[in-house]
Amino acid sequence: MKISALGEFGLISRFSPPFLKGLGRGTIGIGDDCAVIPWKKDASLLVTTDLLLEGVHFLRSKISPADLGAKSLAVNLSDVAAMAGTPRSAFLSLGLPSDIGVDWVDGFFRGLRGLARDHKVALLGGDTTRSEGPIVVNIAVLGLGRPGRIKLRSDARESDIIALTGTLGDSAAGLRILLDEITIGRDEKKLVAAHVRPRAHLEEGAWLGCRVGVRALIDVSDGIDSDLRRIMESSGRGATVDLDRLPVSPSLFAVCRRYGWDPLDFAVAGGEDYCLLTTVAPGVFPSIAAGFGRRFGRPLFPIGRMRAKGKDLAFRLHGRVKKLSQRGFDHFAPGRPTPPKKR
Amino acid sequence: MKISALGEFGLISRFSPPFLKGLGRGTIGIGDDCAVIPWKKDASLLVTTDLLLEGVHFLRSKISPADLGAKSLAVNLSDVAAMAGTPRSAFLSLGLPSDIGVDWVDGFFRGLRGLARDHKVALLGGDTTRSEGPIVVNIAVLGLGRPGRIKLRSDARESDIIALTGTLGDSAAGLRILLDEITIGRDEKKLVAAHVRPRAHLEEGAWLGCRVGVRALIDVSDGIDSDLRRIMESSGRGATVDLDRLPVSPSLFAVCRRYGWDPLDFAVAGGEDYCLLTTVAPGVFPSIAAGFGRRFGRPLFPIGRMRAKGKDLAFRLHGRVKKLSQRGFDHFAPGRPTPPKKR
Repeated sequence: MKISALGEFGLISRFSPPFLKGLGRGTIGIGDDCAVIPWKKDASLLVTTDLLLEGVHFLRSKISPADLGAKSLAVNLSDVAAMAGTPRSAFLSLGLPSDIGVDWVDGFFRGLRGLARDHKVALLGGDTTRSEGPIVVNIAVLGLGRPGRIKLRSDARESDIIALTGTLGDSAAGLRILLDEITIGRDEKKLVAAHVRPRAHLEEGAWLGCRVGVRALIDVSDGIDSDLRRIMESSGRGATVDLDRLPVSPSLFAVCRRYGWDPLDFAVAGGEDYCLLTTVAPGVFPSIAAGFGRRFGRPLFPIGRMRAKGKDLAFRLHGRVKKLSQRGFDHFAPGRPTPPKKR
Repeated sequence: MKISALGEFGLISRFSPPFLKGLGRGTIGIGDDCAVIPWKKDASLLVTTDLLLEGVHFLRSKISPADLGAKSLAVNLSDVAAMAGTPRSAFLSLGLPSDIGVDWVDGFFRGLRGLARDHKVALLGGDTTRSEGPIVVNIAVLGLGRPGRIKLRSDARESDIIALTGTLGDSAAGLRILLDEITIGRDEKKLVAAHVRPRAHLEEGAWLGCRVGVRALIDVSDGIDSDLRRIMESSGRGATVDLDRLPVSPSLFAVCRRYGWDPLDFAVAGGEDYCLLTTVAPGVFPSIAAGFGRRFGRPLFPIGRMRAKGKDLAFRLHGRVKKLSQRGFDHFAPGRPTPPKKR
């Protein structure tokens, strides 16, 4: 059997069980945005790592080296945000084809350094090597989280409100604009920026971490469909999402109108949004949403509800259940990650 | 300018200076086998990461998946050994072509899990993704070291005895045997095993870390020439190595005699030996070497002396300076890492 038949979920659940046995008290291993290692009474060590491969996660011709340097770090910071933590240090493994120019490398490190400085993250080590094939970038990030404030994928309960800290679909539409080589106006520029320079929701994660009643937390990297399923599987719960409540940016609306695209296609299955997906106890949701609005100047968008054990993920449009043809990004599905086509 | 013109040393020294500024007290960043992050009074966090790429660091047809799984971890454990530390947890990033079989993946994890269990290392997280090209393996390892016992590359002083915890060249000869498809006898098997299943010298590193007078410590990954130069540059010292004192295993001697190879070629520039290279204050070397011999049942091999600042690395054969045509493995030199040819 080929691994493409297993898919990413299948592969991880195949090899991970023996590694989940016998972990120390307070240690969380494979299966959340970061691993958690007890450190001090009021701080746990968070560790995450992300591998970006040319041709799978990025195309050299479609992203500047500075953007790639920053994005390689940002996707890891987003994992720390999903644990309500603070990133502290980074470790870079870089595989470079011999024909890469020094200018490219300078640009890559300029982008990486800029974002690292913004977040006071120290690049403390790594590995550099020649690649016979693609550019290979792996970054591991260490951060700190407070034991009582770390929110896990497995913490969602039935009836929790499912909510988002940002809009969906900009990044996927930005990728489509790059691939289709569409003329770049003001709105298109915003979408492309969302794709090549994603922002990790570190402040939002830290704020949510302090709130009692905030339960599960995850970052939206592979699309709301894939990432909500991760919460559902870890928490053993079902979920319903109202498609008409998925938050979409004005720029995405404008561009979709211009090209006859459906914003929902990008919002549901696009991925790489890097906002946070959370579930909140229904009784406290109004006050938490109000507080979030005051703090961040935009809503905490409610998009659905957690359901009982055994229920699948259901999407509703105007109150009626709707079948979707797309799924989030599966890292082992064949073909490169292209944005959804029109339905 | 292409990066191949810079080489690995040139590349690292080009981008690292801004990342070495403003680090916290006790923190050691880019430039040693592991980064060091202060943790508790009697323990520092050690972090290392190594990237292995198919076609550069291994050939799929020449290493079993179980051996590759174990070796990917072993090369990181070796970095922890070079800091006299204890490895604790590992984080794996794995990029796999879609046509890889599930059997291959099962084998890889069997090898990784076996070595991890032997050393009580917990695999706590990682990232799995599809690769459009080579198999990509990155492992990051976290470990613990004792602040007073961590030996740095920069600690060597003039007149220190340079010594090795093991023999050189077995791994490089093992690779040559695999590439040349030589019939495997008892000795050849040992050399191939040294290549595909290297042993990290964790106990040797921990033992040396406790000895006053043991100064610089590094693992031999890229060859004695490359790795001794790292100590020289970090310590600002020169060095002389006596080629006739380089330790070589009986199996390497036997195989070299059989095929008309020169053991020195493998010993000097082969790499992937994963024993430790240390420098020891001359006054205490005899007692440390005697203690090492009692503890490990084999010698701590003296191979040369650290020299004054400004001196280059000199190799001597029977007391006379000898020019060498080979150097250690440069990760950006063109062509795949092949063992040295006959002089």
